[in-house]
Amino acid sequence: MSFSAQDNRFMARAIELAALGRYTTSPNPNVGAVLVQQGQIVGEGYHHQAGGPHAEVVALRQAGDQARGADCYVTLEPCSHVGRTPPCAEALVQAGVRRVIIAMQDPNPQVAGRGVAILTAAGIVVELGLMADCARALNPGFLSRMERQRPFVRLKLAASLDGKTALRNGASQWITSEAARADVQLQRAQCCAVLSTAATVLADGARLGVRPEQACQPITKLHDGKVRQPVRVVLDRQQRLTGQEPLFAQSGPIVLVYPQSSSHQPPAGATALRLPCTAAGFELPALMAALAEQQLNLLWVEAGAGLAGSLLQAGLVDELWLYQAARILGDQARSLVSMPELTSLQQAIELRWQDVRLLGTDLRLIAGLEN
Amino acid sequence: MSFSAQDNRFMARAIELAALGRYTTSPNPNVGAVLVQQGQIVGEGYHHQAGGPHAEVVALRQAGDQARGADCYVTLEPCSHVGRTPPCAEALVQAGVRRVIIAMQDPNPQVAGRGVAILTAAGIVVELGLMADCARALNPGFLSRMERQRPFVRLKLAASLDGKTALRNGASQWITSEAARADVQLQRAQCCAVLSTAATVLADGARLGVRPEQACQPITKLHDGKVRQPVRVVLDRQQRLTGQEPLFAQSGPIVLVYPQSSSHQPPAGATALRLPCTAAGFELPALMAALAEQQLNLLWVEAGAGLAGSLLQAGLVDELWLYQAARILGDQARSLVSMPELTSLQQAIELRWQDVRLLGTDLRLIAGLEN
Repeated sequence: MSFSAQDNRFMARAIELAALGRYTTSPNPNVGAVLVQQGQIVGEGYHHQAGGPHAEVVALRQAGDQARGADCYVTLEPCSHVGRTPPCAEALVQAGVRRVIIAMQDPNPQVAGRGVAILTAAGIVVELGLMADCARALNPGFLSRMERQRPFVRLKLAASLDGKTALRNGASQWITSEAARADVQLQRAQCCAVLSTAATVLADGARLGVRPEQACQPITKLHDGKVRQPVRVVLDRQQRLTGQEPLFAQSGPIVLVYPQSSSHQPPAGATALRLPCTAAGFELPALMAALAEQQLNLLWVEAGAGLAGSLLQAGLVDELWLYQAARILGDQARSLVSMPELTSLQQAIELRWQDVRLLGTDLRLIAGLEN
Repeated sequence: MSFSAQDNRFMARAIELAALGRYTTSPNPNVGAVLVQQGQIVGEGYHHQAGGPHAEVVALRQAGDQARGADCYVTLEPCSHVGRTPPCAEALVQAGVRRVIIAMQDPNPQVAGRGVAILTAAGIVVELGLMADCARALNPGFLSRMERQRPFVRLKLAASLDGKTALRNGASQWITSEAARADVQLQRAQCCAVLSTAATVLADGARLGVRPEQACQPITKLHDGKVRQPVRVVLDRQQRLTGQEPLFAQSGPIVLVYPQSSSHQPPAGATALRLPCTAAGFELPALMAALAEQQLNLLWVEAGAGLAGSLLQAGLVDELWLYQAARILGDQARSLVSMPELTSLQQAIELRWQDVRLLGTDLRLIAGLEN
């Protein structure tokens, strides 16, 4: 199948629209749609919030009668099932569009080709695969949950130039700059959940929520005028959190992870998730499966060297986000990642650089892992 | 003084020419010159090698009779003293140039304004300060030696993403990629001296010289057709090097640094430099002064965490060059910089990012220090 420059231009617009939903669509994917009549855009839209209209429906409403005979560019296969809204594939048929160009098939087993089938059965020309890589990049978390039954995991670390996170006496506020912390606000706001540990919550007084006034860019709000808060998931094997910590002063859902054997009741404002646990800690694959079952797509991990090492060794990190300060703390300070001793460089955990940028006086390095 | 766009263009050309000498002029500075007659370049040149003609002389020879009444753009104040070549200021006077535009005054006490005085006395218009920052950047080493009586020090480090240089068992070849090592060849070739320690030479079999066939770009040769080799300076407090190490198999001068109290004779192929020494090691300011006295401008340090930490703590590092591999080795591996424990983050060594680029699969980060 070959696409024209015009096709690329309209799909690029649909992708740009889809990204507008990045703070709000959880647990749904980001989707954008553009309706084109004789080379002119006659309707466009994106999915803003679960329960609200899908991108195609927003675009169809805007186009009105002009949808008849139009081409529809959409970043994800139109849905075929009645969820909280009627199926978009049916809506496109009823509106009389002529051709539907789809960036990628929906991996959701409730859709997975059925949207295309409905369109084709109605005589609509369907073309699949335009800018599929860009469309996939819109939804790493949703795709991971659908395809791997676990969230897409971003491990956030902050360190000095020599890879140290804190002094030996524990002093660590602040290794990185205000600009780096403002970026962290944006990243938390795009994630479905933030994962941390009781140790981090207790040591740093971490709230782990989104404080929009501290973010470096505006964060799109939900229809109720509020910023969506990620679910804060805290590993608390020893049931140390009491409800008095600053974590509980910040609005938004809290899930405390306890050992399966524990019947400890969580403090008010939190729910419990009980998981298999050994002396080495929680079974991390079971944790990821449980989070995916709770429809959490994108997971942002902010914790210490221990959890970082365990996740990396379990092959459960997809991206490492390192905020690196131009300071040197020396070898007596604390290291970034705890792991058993390696005896050969072949055992090293390998990544590939994906993005580097300067944030204030810090670098932000993103590196990906193959899992 | 205000300069025209044309002035900037010709000075930029002179700076570009000057940089062509970066592998060969040591211990002299890099200098470029352009002669312009009615908006046209009639002669240009750069200083290639100590003992050979200076930039102005090369440009004057190329211009011939067209030098009369020309404007001369030169990146460093023309010399006023008879060294290995006659003074350039006199040559410009004799050629009858009308105006000389100079990027920066020569800090060499043998020149320092006297070149300008000769020109002015001859009725030549002299303008000073055009693109001075760019001109300074051509010669960090020469300027450091003239202004601070010590070399400009670049500390090269190679580490994993988590700031580790080797496994605990010592395995470190190769943390970084071939592309990073090819860049190191270029950087060594631009330096006057490479500083290391007997420990590094013994542990890694390091040769520390320039192998042009391994460099990622061609390295300009001396007039004799050879690549200039930096002086290899090795701290050998315990007189451990025997002359049998691979270091001695590589051509180029070797200086072994021994304690002042030692009368040990260096192996064939090396000369000795004897310096004050305590239990903590050599007195590093004395080392730097001694290297400057040997006309070494730009020093490239390749050693271990110990020397790195000592130089940083002594305020003797001007730039840190970190080749960072996208790998994780964990907290059991060896750290980048050895230093006494810090008790407050205010004690951290502060740098500022200057340059980041991708070399093969590694990042090269350059950060500067204020000393």
